[in-house]
Amino acid sequence: MSQAATQYNAREIHELRETLRNTNPVDVAERLESMDDHQAIMLFRMLPKDTAADVFAYLSRDMQENIVNAIQDYEIAHIIDELFLDDAVDFIEEMPAGVVKRVLSNLPKEKRNIINHFLKYPDGSVGSIMTIEYVDLKEFLTVAETFARIRRDGVDKETIYTLYVIDSQRKLLGAVSAKKLLLSSPDDKIGDIMQREITSATTADEAESVANDFRKYGLLAMPVVDAEGRLVGIVTVDDILEIQEEVATEDFELMAGLSPSDEPYLKTSIWTLVRNRLPWLIILMLIGIIAGVILDTFEDAISAIPVLVTFIPMLMNTGGAGGSQSSTLVIRGLALGEVALHDIFKVLWREMRIAFICGAALALVNFIRVLLMYNPDTLGLSVALLGLSVSLALWITVFMAKIVGCSLPLLAKRLKLDPAVMAAPVITTVVDASSLLVFFGIAKAMFGL
Amino acid sequence: MSQAATQYNAREIHELRETLRNTNPVDVAERLESMDDHQAIMLFRMLPKDTAADVFAYLSRDMQENIVNAIQDYEIAHIIDELFLDDAVDFIEEMPAGVVKRVLSNLPKEKRNIINHFLKYPDGSVGSIMTIEYVDLKEFLTVAETFARIRRDGVDKETIYTLYVIDSQRKLLGAVSAKKLLLSSPDDKIGDIMQREITSATTADEAESVANDFRKYGLLAMPVVDAEGRLVGIVTVDDILEIQEEVATEDFELMAGLSPSDEPYLKTSIWTLVRNRLPWLIILMLIGIIAGVILDTFEDAISAIPVLVTFIPMLMNTGGAGGSQSSTLVIRGLALGEVALHDIFKVLWREMRIAFICGAALALVNFIRVLLMYNPDTLGLSVALLGLSVSLALWITVFMAKIVGCSLPLLAKRLKLDPAVMAAPVITTVVDASSLLVFFGIAKAMFGL
Repeated sequence: MSQAATQYNAREIHELRETLRNTNPVDVAERLESMDDHQAIMLFRMLPKDTAADVFAYLSRDMQENIVNAIQDYEIAHIIDELFLDDAVDFIEEMPAGVVKRVLSNLPKEKRNIINHFLKYPDGSVGSIMTIEYVDLKEFLTVAETFARIRRDGVDKETIYTLYVIDSQRKLLGAVSAKKLLLSSPDDKIGDIMQREITSATTADEAESVANDFRKYGLLAMPVVDAEGRLVGIVTVDDILEIQEEVATEDFELMAGLSPSDEPYLKTSIWTLVRNRLPWLIILMLIGIIAGVILDTFEDAISAIPVLVTFIPMLMNTGGAGGSQSSTLVIRGLALGEVALHDIFKVLWREMRIAFICGAALALVNFIRVLLMYNPDTLGLSVALLGLSVSLALWITVFMAKIVGCSLPLLAKRLKLDPAVMAAPVITTVVDASSLLVFFGIAKAMFGL
Repeated sequence: MSQAATQYNAREIHELRETLRNTNPVDVAERLESMDDHQAIMLFRMLPKDTAADVFAYLSRDMQENIVNAIQDYEIAHIIDELFLDDAVDFIEEMPAGVVKRVLSNLPKEKRNIINHFLKYPDGSVGSIMTIEYVDLKEFLTVAETFARIRRDGVDKETIYTLYVIDSQRKLLGAVSAKKLLLSSPDDKIGDIMQREITSATTADEAESVANDFRKYGLLAMPVVDAEGRLVGIVTVDDILEIQEEVATEDFELMAGLSPSDEPYLKTSIWTLVRNRLPWLIILMLIGIIAGVILDTFEDAISAIPVLVTFIPMLMNTGGAGGSQSSTLVIRGLALGEVALHDIFKVLWREMRIAFICGAALALVNFIRVLLMYNPDTLGLSVALLGLSVSLALWITVFMAKIVGCSLPLLAKRLKLDPAVMAAPVITTVVDASSLLVFFGIAKAMFGL
């Protein structure tokens, strides 16, 4: 790489550095992303040492990889060492093996061991989003001693607004907020002012359910303990905001039949987008064949009463929509912790009543519109009987769709699958196939075909 | 109401109060919700005065209304006065007119005026979620004086971790974090240590876009200014966690054809759930008629080649799924601020390429499966020609579906509608109708009908 310095004189570089130092690292990262790689790397190397790591944490994985490939080993080691541990682990998880090896081999042994340990936590677990930059205290410290400690250690911690109290075995005893410290007298003992009843997580907990606790209790941070109750890390609210957004986006994508993607839409390559969509489309297309095969078996009925065909789109759309209403509410309820597995009978009983009422109303509206739209003379059969068969099929379809829609996500959860993943294709299949069977079954019976 | 005290002796009450005082208000509220109304009100009245308001803020609107109806005017006034302003405003917005009148008339005039002012901010605006319990500072204060001020005023503030610096006209000059204060020397002047470049919002901004800023910059609080740049309130991260969750839930519901609801699924009445679902189902059902009418016009083609009918479910499902993949990504991108209105041509160009590739792959798979599944002898026509017409129709359908799917949310946004709201019904209509027109048009041309 060419040296950045060749194109600027000393004063210009000084000014640029000052501007960069006073700009929020998020905005610097955004500006780097909009430049070509060469320029971006040049500018990155001009960043003051202490802000380079901050900026690095906010870059896209492509840009991070480019930078790591362009800079010296000692520079990499410095940046990764300066990152908060959760950001360092995120970065290493995203990089190709060659880069990972180079990065890890340049770190101090202790840091390398910690990172290797963190890399083992499964994706989506609390362990994978926690960090170790917290302040811990002992019960016997006074408030004044605690302030001294914050002044000494606090600058590199992710938060100093909640401090955790541990015993000599590192077992978590309680927490004290900076607010409480500020409102207490300097001689108060931590053990006397700390809050003993605190919510904690374990490394194996789901990040999603911890996010629900943050929202419920309005937390800024939560301690993470191991199986023996020893403090091993903290989760902070900024990571929870991201997790909550990512989990919702993943559910949106799964429910629309898309393989989830971490990257923003406009930054994802066309081929990745095709790869995320095509398998689902092919599955849904093949599933459509089942409905086609069923239709094929009713060829006689269709040629006897061709008008029956014109009700198929309406039946399938209404059934599909009714099913996805129910599945969406249950999937969302499960995600937010408002619905649990043991609520299945409550959910079923509610959906049965709702389906009964909605189905009846739809059947009525449909019956009236069939009476209004069709003329018995041109049709050559009883319009009332036609309306009745369509309406009855509609009612049953909506009923089945809602039962399937509400129970499938719960079933998926029971099987430890993501409830969102089974929604679209399975509901469509079941509803399409059964609505056709019901409709033609009823029509054949009513018209004696 | 009977007096709670009659059923407990003095020591029991004391113990119960102590337990309640040491329990998180969120958990007390949850316990109250699980009791019958009479018990819940009794227990609520036993709460120590200083925790009653905290608990009240976390109760459901039904329980809040029950309690307000059961207690004395002076008790109401006390609770509402103790609430953070944003919680008080939320509560009053949800209550029926009679309750609102009674609550407001018992408040001090000044508080009443502030609440009336806040009630005017539109739902979903920053004004509607901000609060006024913040600490403001002047530039000339020292760090030591600031700590004294936090000790004096801080106890009733929503946050003391970000403090806002204003001039004599209340214009926002900057912010200083409690961390910065703790790491500075007592004689430092606020004006010298404060951060001048800070992100702020106005009361009219959308809460959703402010949530994106919180996530982007990892904020704990954001100042809110009026049109003249004067500090009028703050938004805190706990409210942002809720807003982010509510906005996502609302989009999930709109996209599934549901009127959004604030209450958790299991706590919503059957009739409310029916009311949220039925209008959409009726609309979708009536929309299904359009596809039926189109099918009706192709009666000749269907009676000439009955097997054509069996491809309808597959065409409609694949088209619908292809469209909802595109609309979901665009809706989510808009919500997260990753896609903007001016990106429309970029989005269209991406979706056209993706649709071309996905459509081609689907057409190919479909062509092969038609060749494999159908026998020209029993069918009485060219299987290759049949496969070709279905595959061509499928390709065009997927293409149209993706173009419609990606442009409709952007169009809705342009018309200042919620992008999520137009997704399901309009895409379904357009895709269903046009896929039938294309399919039968191609089939008629190919088979010379």
